[in-house]
Amino acid sequence: MSNDPNRYYEDIPVGVQRELGSHLVTRDEIIRFATEWDPQPFHIDEDAAQSSVFGGLTASSCHTYAISSLIFSRSPGKIATAAMLGLELQFPTAVRPEDVLTLHDLCTDQRLSSSRPGHGVVSSRTTLTNQNGEDVFVMTSSYLVRCRRAAD
Amino acid sequence: MSNDPNRYYEDIPVGVQRELGSHLVTRDEIIRFATEWDPQPFHIDEDAAQSSVFGGLTASSCHTYAISSLIFSRSPGKIATAAMLGLELQFPTAVRPEDVLTLHDLCTDQRLSSSRPGHGVVSSRTTLTNQNGEDVFVMTSSYLVRCRRAAD
Repeated sequence: MSNDPNRYYEDIPVGVQRELGSHLVTRDEIIRFATEWDPQPFHIDEDAAQSSVFGGLTASSCHTYAISSLIFSRSPGKIATAAMLGLELQFPTAVRPEDVLTLHDLCTDQRLSSSRPGHGVVSSRTTLTNQNGEDVFVMTSSYLVRCRRAAD
Repeated sequence: MSNDPNRYYEDIPVGVQRELGSHLVTRDEIIRFATEWDPQPFHIDEDAAQSSVFGGLTASSCHTYAISSLIFSRSPGKIATAAMLGLELQFPTAVRPEDVLTLHDLCTDQRLSSSRPGHGVVSSRTTLTNQNGEDVFVMTSSYLVRCRRAAD
């Protein structure tokens, strides 16, 4: 039996939600990410952000997505993802400095891949929720996962 | 008349595709982004990447998304985006070191916002294409854009 700590296709039960971890979003991180990748005034400039529809500094949508990857990568029993196939993202509430975001995921469907032997396709719903219980990020995704029998 | 260089809701014609710019993706950038945000072995380790389904180093999906934001932010006549509402992402081809990615966007629909006076909702299809003409990223998104009459 393998001691491999990863979770494979066979280890992902459909319909069971898991909490994967949390991340504190700092003002500096919001500004640093957005300065490099998405320098909209309302992500990098406190004054401009005050007069935006958000009334204050908010994280870039790709920063929010990156935070979900980061928490995922640090979670115990990490899923042996082989490729991201497609995803749908919603940002129901803005991410603000000092938010603590918690990631949950839920496998909604799975099937063996017909084109990639030894792999399965998993559909999942992943959410980032802030300290007030508001969803800030909802991702519906499908990704390729290695099968355990191919890994052993 | 305003000298504001931004493009507002009224300046975005439906059905006209625009080329927004290009970006050279280096090996170092792929590894640096993924090391911080998405440290999967096939994004940060050349040897592990060789035995992945891609057979070589590939960019993280959130890195690819961030590149689209970056080119967008540098494009002339930048759209006065106020908020990202939702998006669907596809990654038909992997992004590899030394790829030159070119961003195109096409407004597919627009309407005035009922909940945000002075703003419109724009639907668009944005693509990143590599030097071989292959789409590496297709984003269908809707976002809030300021109206010119509110900006003047």
